[in-house]
Amino acid sequence: MDIENYIPHLSIDCVIFGFHGEQLKVLLPKVKRLDTWTLPGGYVLKSEDLEEAAQRILEERTGLKDIYLEQFYTFGKAKRSTGEMMKKMLLVNDFEIDESSWIFQRFVSIGYYALVDFSKVVTKTGVYDEFCEWYDIHQLPNLAFDHAEIIQKALETLRYMLDDKLVGLNLLPETFTMKELQILYQTILDKPLRRDNFQRKILSMGILERIEKKFTGAAHKAPYLYKFIK
Amino acid sequence: MDIENYIPHLSIDCVIFGFHGEQLKVLLPKVKRLDTWTLPGGYVLKSEDLEEAAQRILEERTGLKDIYLEQFYTFGKAKRSTGEMMKKMLLVNDFEIDESSWIFQRFVSIGYYALVDFSKVVTKTGVYDEFCEWYDIHQLPNLAFDHAEIIQKALETLRYMLDDKLVGLNLLPETFTMKELQILYQTILDKPLRRDNFQRKILSMGILERIEKKFTGAAHKAPYLYKFIK
Repeated sequence: MDIENYIPHLSIDCVIFGFHGEQLKVLLPKVKRLDTWTLPGGYVLKSEDLEEAAQRILEERTGLKDIYLEQFYTFGKAKRSTGEMMKKMLLVNDFEIDESSWIFQRFVSIGYYALVDFSKVVTKTGVYDEFCEWYDIHQLPNLAFDHAEIIQKALETLRYMLDDKLVGLNLLPETFTMKELQILYQTILDKPLRRDNFQRKILSMGILERIEKKFTGAAHKAPYLYKFIK
Repeated sequence: MDIENYIPHLSIDCVIFGFHGEQLKVLLPKVKRLDTWTLPGGYVLKSEDLEEAAQRILEERTGLKDIYLEQFYTFGKAKRSTGEMMKKMLLVNDFEIDESSWIFQRFVSIGYYALVDFSKVVTKTGVYDEFCEWYDIHQLPNLAFDHAEIIQKALETLRYMLDDKLVGLNLLPETFTMKELQILYQTILDKPLRRDNFQRKILSMGILERIEKKFTGAAHKAPYLYKFIK
């Protein structure tokens, strides 16, 4: 990586949400040889759009391609990233370092979040990463820099956007029951919802299509399946 | 201005909304000696938080102090800002330029918007500015770079946040009539609203306090005044 090709002092961090086993999860690479995790992130080439950089970084770090990313906030406290953690990450992995480089100075980081279908993700790892795993948002590992705060802000944005962005469209498989959709909403909002209120509200939004049941001996006891009207 | 003190390739642009004469307006400085306006913007010192930079820039460019700014989006297309306009702006104002400087290269710009009480604003001008004026969002002057797009995005954010952020709290004087509040909402949303629906919705939000009328001869014909519950 030739550091000269990148915009100095600028990075991108991605918060990748998935939903599995009634848990909202975040995809996080672990730093090799350190008890530290980071968000999948990287730098912006001088020649590329921010959106292109976010897609490239995500693919390099996690193997995920062409997924829906949304910019949500830019993190720019002067003291959010000192060079100490970067030095540690590079030194334990036997990289040579030039201490005067901008990569050991302050960073402004642009946050993107993505919603992916958990069952379709096959991850790979970047050059600093030991592995890349899913973590329940209630049980996050030890995170470097202000990455815990970035995840929190992404989660707040997700909650705020919940109805408008059809969050379920990306986090659920193609067909699902009303109960599964309610559990997803409850998990994101982190609070119980009344079944009748939830059902009335969701159906009134006109975003769901009910799939007619096929006639089989037992089918009348199975719940209806729904899918999103695209 | 010593350019070495700033984070290269990074800028802040501020969209300042005010409301006057049933128009939503934006505060824009005009570039000296050019038929061009820009958003009030500037660079981020290596030592300051983004929020601090936004406040400082706003004060330097417009005279506005301690106002509520909210970050809304970061603009990062690779081709959004070539150096041509910057060179033109500096050359017509007889500044010396070093063409190799990063200020003539690509910029990533962080957008902030603010809502101010039009009647309280006394503007001043920055070093490149001829004057700083309010413009109706439907009649914007000739804008440099992608600043028209930045204003559009700020406006979309304002509309999206309209109910949550108590937009009226900052754009209206302390007391106002229901009709004035409705006109503000209509102006921001750029569409007529039904009086009865609007009134019912706003009152149900529990954000307004009605000020009791004082008894005078003519007062019974005057409309009620309201203020926001803080």
